[in-house]
Amino acid sequence: MSINISVLGSTGSIGTQTLEVVDQFKSQLKVVGLAAGGNVDLLKAQIKKYHPKAVSVKREKDARIIEKAHFGDEGNCKVATLPSVDKVVIATPGLAGIKPTLAAIGSKKTLALATKEVLVAAGQIVTRQAKKNKVKILPIDSEHSAIFQCLEGREVDEVKRVILTASGGPFRGMKARQLKNITPSQALKHPNWKMGAKITIDSATLMNKGFEVIEAIWLFGVPLSKITVVVHPQSIIHSAVEFIDGSIIAQLGPSDMRLPIQFALLYPGKRGKNNFRRFSFGDFSSLSFEEPDLKIFRCLDLAFGTIGQGKTMPAVMTAANDIAVAAFLNKKLPFFRIPDVIESTLEVHRPRVYSTMEEILEVDMSARDIAAKFVVKFGFK
Amino acid sequence: MSINISVLGSTGSIGTQTLEVVDQFKSQLKVVGLAAGGNVDLLKAQIKKYHPKAVSVKREKDARIIEKAHFGDEGNCKVATLPSVDKVVIATPGLAGIKPTLAAIGSKKTLALATKEVLVAAGQIVTRQAKKNKVKILPIDSEHSAIFQCLEGREVDEVKRVILTASGGPFRGMKARQLKNITPSQALKHPNWKMGAKITIDSATLMNKGFEVIEAIWLFGVPLSKITVVVHPQSIIHSAVEFIDGSIIAQLGPSDMRLPIQFALLYPGKRGKNNFRRFSFGDFSSLSFEEPDLKIFRCLDLAFGTIGQGKTMPAVMTAANDIAVAAFLNKKLPFFRIPDVIESTLEVHRPRVYSTMEEILEVDMSARDIAAKFVVKFGFK
Repeated sequence: MSINISVLGSTGSIGTQTLEVVDQFKSQLKVVGLAAGGNVDLLKAQIKKYHPKAVSVKREKDARIIEKAHFGDEGNCKVATLPSVDKVVIATPGLAGIKPTLAAIGSKKTLALATKEVLVAAGQIVTRQAKKNKVKILPIDSEHSAIFQCLEGREVDEVKRVILTASGGPFRGMKARQLKNITPSQALKHPNWKMGAKITIDSATLMNKGFEVIEAIWLFGVPLSKITVVVHPQSIIHSAVEFIDGSIIAQLGPSDMRLPIQFALLYPGKRGKNNFRRFSFGDFSSLSFEEPDLKIFRCLDLAFGTIGQGKTMPAVMTAANDIAVAAFLNKKLPFFRIPDVIESTLEVHRPRVYSTMEEILEVDMSARDIAAKFVVKFGFK
Repeated sequence: MSINISVLGSTGSIGTQTLEVVDQFKSQLKVVGLAAGGNVDLLKAQIKKYHPKAVSVKREKDARIIEKAHFGDEGNCKVATLPSVDKVVIATPGLAGIKPTLAAIGSKKTLALATKEVLVAAGQIVTRQAKKNKVKILPIDSEHSAIFQCLEGREVDEVKRVILTASGGPFRGMKARQLKNITPSQALKHPNWKMGAKITIDSATLMNKGFEVIEAIWLFGVPLSKITVVVHPQSIIHSAVEFIDGSIIAQLGPSDMRLPIQFALLYPGKRGKNNFRRFSFGDFSSLSFEEPDLKIFRCLDLAFGTIGQGKTMPAVMTAANDIAVAAFLNKKLPFFRIPDVIESTLEVHRPRVYSTMEEILEVDMSARDIAAKFVVKFGFK
């Protein structure tokens, strides 16, 4: 029996790597749904190769040129809730991932979740619905997949702390004045991982690690006080769990996103043999560790504060970060001003309890407007 | 419901640490049997503290001065097979561990096994009997406990290789000529672990790692070709398992034997909180790895060869090593001659299939006689 999967965001970095994993396990994994954004040519090629039962694109005009294609949020939800689907890969960028996530949960599909915003902005709704529907959320990213693997067979009350590793990004060890003149092309050079532009910048500011702390809280039910961020420049230990007996279980491996993707796709089945590159201790004579510098990487510090406040604050943070990063990439905002835009946006927001997706989307929109104003204030004159 | 345990070798290093673990989990662990060698005073103190139902000592004369004490092999077996016992800690040094191990297996007691010789010399008999009686063998030592923890919930056909770490001992990185004048007191200084004299010397020659490879083969059912020895001087990663998908799960922690003991005693229950020292990445800014130098540490190379030949060869190796190490500690044999004694003893032995403990004990005795002659040949004149 093969596992039927739908891939939302199939033409992006996670989506295409998901299909590479499918290619390795043709007898076990079958693509039945594909949803993409604007890269219609690649989607067409994927349709030709995988013959999905349902397809969706972002815009109506693109849907017209693809046979029987759905579009927009509704199309995403259609692909996520196909009756024959067992597992839905959520790799739709940004908040657009939330609706199909909730739809898939409502249809009791297992989730393989890559889109960070889903848990960062709407973790409370998503995890509550998942619990209610007894739906498992399998993380697709190296850190949370590592934590998930380290926890296998163990209970959360056996956990002393989660050790979330961070590469430190391309600017690790820099002083504040060195961050003044960072260009987008410098920030886009991640030392270990090949990823999309947005997440690469988030890795350079360590905001990404802040998001991951929030995700870990929702995914594993551990409080912030039990999560430690450790900078580990080689990105070989993808994360670890210390148990109450003092024993630490860590997950290591090559920096290859296809590994956490494969783990999520095959879970809870056996691990499967692939032809991906292997890790060798011979390639790494030394693994090193250090504390993150919160004075330099202020985004991580902001994330810690935001988690403490909770409620709508993480949603505001991710919205403001989106705007700030886009402005940096468009050369409208200096790199070191990204945290200023986020901090200022957070300061003017009054945190409130939320219980619906609509509330989150509203908070998101208003935070984006406010952040855009701060981009003007802190941006290049 | 508490777990009733018998501790064989209760006055030795593993035995006393086992009782320290019991002290941490008084409501979960109960000592019902104690067996010791010649340290009668300490055994008496343990009896007074734990009120075991059965006690045994090595010699009949010692048994006379302890109330209702058994003695010898028979006494060991009595303590190992008490009807109320759930789990038997086998920490009796040397081949004397085999008889009570087989007795405990026959009585379907779960084993917590520390004595290396049991699996190194008689692995075939012991594991066959354990399988037949559906008895679980839980390893008590840091490496195999690590491997066991890394394998939790996974099958052996998911394993690509077992990565057995070695500290490298006090003479790591030395050249052959530097090994010429090693004294017992130098060899007894292990960089990371506090252990008994015999095993400390075995760690200095890396023979101990050879034994551990053999144990891993029997405990986990993996062939030699799937075991890699990696020198990791900090002894923080206690061992790891690489799975067929390329993901590596490693177990890390402080160098404290009470951790693997505790894991074995509480298994398959939840992990338990203790007051032992914790590991911090802050204490280790860097973890390093290198290949073992088989030209310098010939004992490990001999072990690999012996495993390839199988049959009675590992039993001969451990017997010859016993004699050689004792001679070194008694200043009768230079350190660098230890592998010569073992190699020469192995050369004159014709490997044969064995199926009973008596055969192994016979092979052991004859190998000891032969090794003693080679000690004279290679020893100080």
